[in-house]
Amino acid sequence: MTDSGPFLPRRKLLAGSAVALTAAGLGGLSAQARAQNKALPAYAAWKDANALTVHSANTLETRRSAFGASVITPSDQLYIRNNLPPPDASVLSDRDAWELWVEGVKSPRALTLRDLKTLGIESVATVLQCSGNGRGFFPSKPSGTPWTVGAAGCVMWTGVPLRAVAQALGGVADGRKFITGTGGEKLPEGVDPKSVIVERSVPIQALGEALLAWEMNGTPLSIAHGGPLRLVLPGYQGVNNIKYIKRLAFTDAESDAKIMAHGYRLTPPGGTANASQPSVLEMNVKSWINSPSDDGGPLKAGRVQIVGVAFGGGQAVKQVEVSLDGGKSWKAAQLFGPDLGRFAWRQFVLSAELPAGTHVLASRATDASGQVQPQDRLENVGGYNNNSWADHAVKVTVA
Amino acid sequence: MTDSGPFLPRRKLLAGSAVALTAAGLGGLSAQARAQNKALPAYAAWKDANALTVHSANTLETRRSAFGASVITPSDQLYIRNNLPPPDASVLSDRDAWELWVEGVKSPRALTLRDLKTLGIESVATVLQCSGNGRGFFPSKPSGTPWTVGAAGCVMWTGVPLRAVAQALGGVADGRKFITGTGGEKLPEGVDPKSVIVERSVPIQALGEALLAWEMNGTPLSIAHGGPLRLVLPGYQGVNNIKYIKRLAFTDAESDAKIMAHGYRLTPPGGTANASQPSVLEMNVKSWINSPSDDGGPLKAGRVQIVGVAFGGGQAVKQVEVSLDGGKSWKAAQLFGPDLGRFAWRQFVLSAELPAGTHVLASRATDASGQVQPQDRLENVGGYNNNSWADHAVKVTVA
Repeated sequence: MTDSGPFLPRRKLLAGSAVALTAAGLGGLSAQARAQNKALPAYAAWKDANALTVHSANTLETRRSAFGASVITPSDQLYIRNNLPPPDASVLSDRDAWELWVEGVKSPRALTLRDLKTLGIESVATVLQCSGNGRGFFPSKPSGTPWTVGAAGCVMWTGVPLRAVAQALGGVADGRKFITGTGGEKLPEGVDPKSVIVERSVPIQALGEALLAWEMNGTPLSIAHGGPLRLVLPGYQGVNNIKYIKRLAFTDAESDAKIMAHGYRLTPPGGTANASQPSVLEMNVKSWINSPSDDGGPLKAGRVQIVGVAFGGGQAVKQVEVSLDGGKSWKAAQLFGPDLGRFAWRQFVLSAELPAGTHVLASRATDASGQVQPQDRLENVGGYNNNSWADHAVKVTVA
Repeated sequence: MTDSGPFLPRRKLLAGSAVALTAAGLGGLSAQARAQNKALPAYAAWKDANALTVHSANTLETRRSAFGASVITPSDQLYIRNNLPPPDASVLSDRDAWELWVEGVKSPRALTLRDLKTLGIESVATVLQCSGNGRGFFPSKPSGTPWTVGAAGCVMWTGVPLRAVAQALGGVADGRKFITGTGGEKLPEGVDPKSVIVERSVPIQALGEALLAWEMNGTPLSIAHGGPLRLVLPGYQGVNNIKYIKRLAFTDAESDAKIMAHGYRLTPPGGTANASQPSVLEMNVKSWINSPSDDGGPLKAGRVQIVGVAFGGGQAVKQVEVSLDGGKSWKAAQLFGPDLGRFAWRQFVLSAELPAGTHVLASRATDASGQVQPQDRLENVGGYNNNSWADHAVKVTVA
């Protein structure tokens, strides 16, 4: 505890400092909830402990009530989901020396981050979401982290378009059908590398928008989020956005790594995962309400601004409806704030009078192609791709 | 120094922790520059010391090389310029209880922040810039902080449109010509309050876009930036965006507080400030290059992406040109990244080959109304409103 304690904004409090948390008299988490929360892992010690639920060292979730209404999710409130522990921080000691091996182009070669920075620059805002976001709402209790809404955020990436990199190396080799990215995590010893390596393939159509990013939200990419270099695939579920990317290959076939061949498959209830089932690739249309929320402050009867986020994966959001009665009736909400492009989420608001009592508030988004967020989740063994509006509704009590 | 030290991203290092800075082996500031930099003031201890030059406890500037290329300036890298020390942090202990007195409407009254939050919500991205930004380039060495480019940033505000507040109170009283905001700083004792109070007036035309903001970049507004409530006037120089706003009045005349009547006037060289001279109100068209920069890393001969920011104040940016030869010849740069609206800045890039030698790189913006960033600054006693492209050019040495 320093003299500056009382001045620290809520989001800057470091984990494990119960004294600082108490002294600052902050809202959001109850003392009980704070006491129950796990400490932030060392590589993410700069995160806002008060805005996050720490499920484990590799799974941290943004609290619903911590989402602001300013479109971009602050870096220190953004969720983390790592399939393997991150590499040692020493990989950031000379960011520009990081090497990426590029294959499946006319002139395959290694490029340093310094090289990549000469080839072009682009910024894109995307929803970054774990495909397991919403798993916590599955009554079947799939194995894996029981995320509710907070394994998602909207962030701004800056890097070089992948198509510019391919072009600089003579173009994509003929007939290649997939973009396959391989992460640079240090693999555990004594196991088949294919069983643990983070390697994913997406259709080559993703080339048009793919980015090799070295910056997120205006600062060099942290270890927690894949620095020094990450593959960003706008519109695709988080797992495809390979962190610490070491190899980028245009390939004829999908990777045979376990995480691609068996992991992240939409396996029907009772079934076993295999490569014939759909993989988690593009995100689907989705929305949820952040305020008021069931983990927010008390609510007084009267006018309230019901605020949330909506996104369409690869499609822009066309409209959002809000229900005050658990989905029996719907009213058109308004989108507000800057439109950061079709891969970002939009904020929506419905101004409503809420009398005393209990209310179930729900939201339902429609994307530009006319896809409507469904009432029901698609049941699957892994608990992926949940975009059910019913699951994401919030029950609030008004005094 | 904790175990997590090596994992801290550059921007999260706390001021005054030379050990942590050294241990993390970070670029940006040289050891000498870090040693010379003043410590962050307590109320801003959460800022990124490595990204800022601390001129004084109330004047902190973002380093040119610290600006990322992701449009939004991270909160912990944003400049600070306070005319008075900020209020005690206790004003944030119950944000929603903060009171704003609204006058010059049909039904004047005090509204709490809790009340304001029921009236509507909007997000807007704006360039926030001290009118003295660029003062450091005046050869006349005006008194005041010698800012270069870093008393500016582009941030996202969320709050209630001022017009919705006026409407809720019966509308603006007839014939009112100005919006006058008064800050809630604690005034020093023993002096005429009018000589120190932060109170500014802008033409009522600003009502269309004005916001009463409680959130910046996705988190509740910090004390450092005017929390719990700030008047945001998109397109207007920073001083008009009243922090800790306690009173918002629609008035017949401009405030007679010294900061309005004499301060921030465009006084001709050799003259004395008075209320007949233009005040610093709307920003003018401006741009500058952030990368490569004279405080960045070494540069190798070859292809380089020249990146910077451009804004038009109340107008969108139409085009940016870049010169590699100190303004003798110009090439069209490309705008990139999301367009956050006409009050935000745009990122621009020119891809160029730079041979070994010394180069003077300049940028020149044109806004949607056709206003072109001028070569020369408007000389004035206070060193305000500098948008000279020549002053903002960077000299880089290529090895």
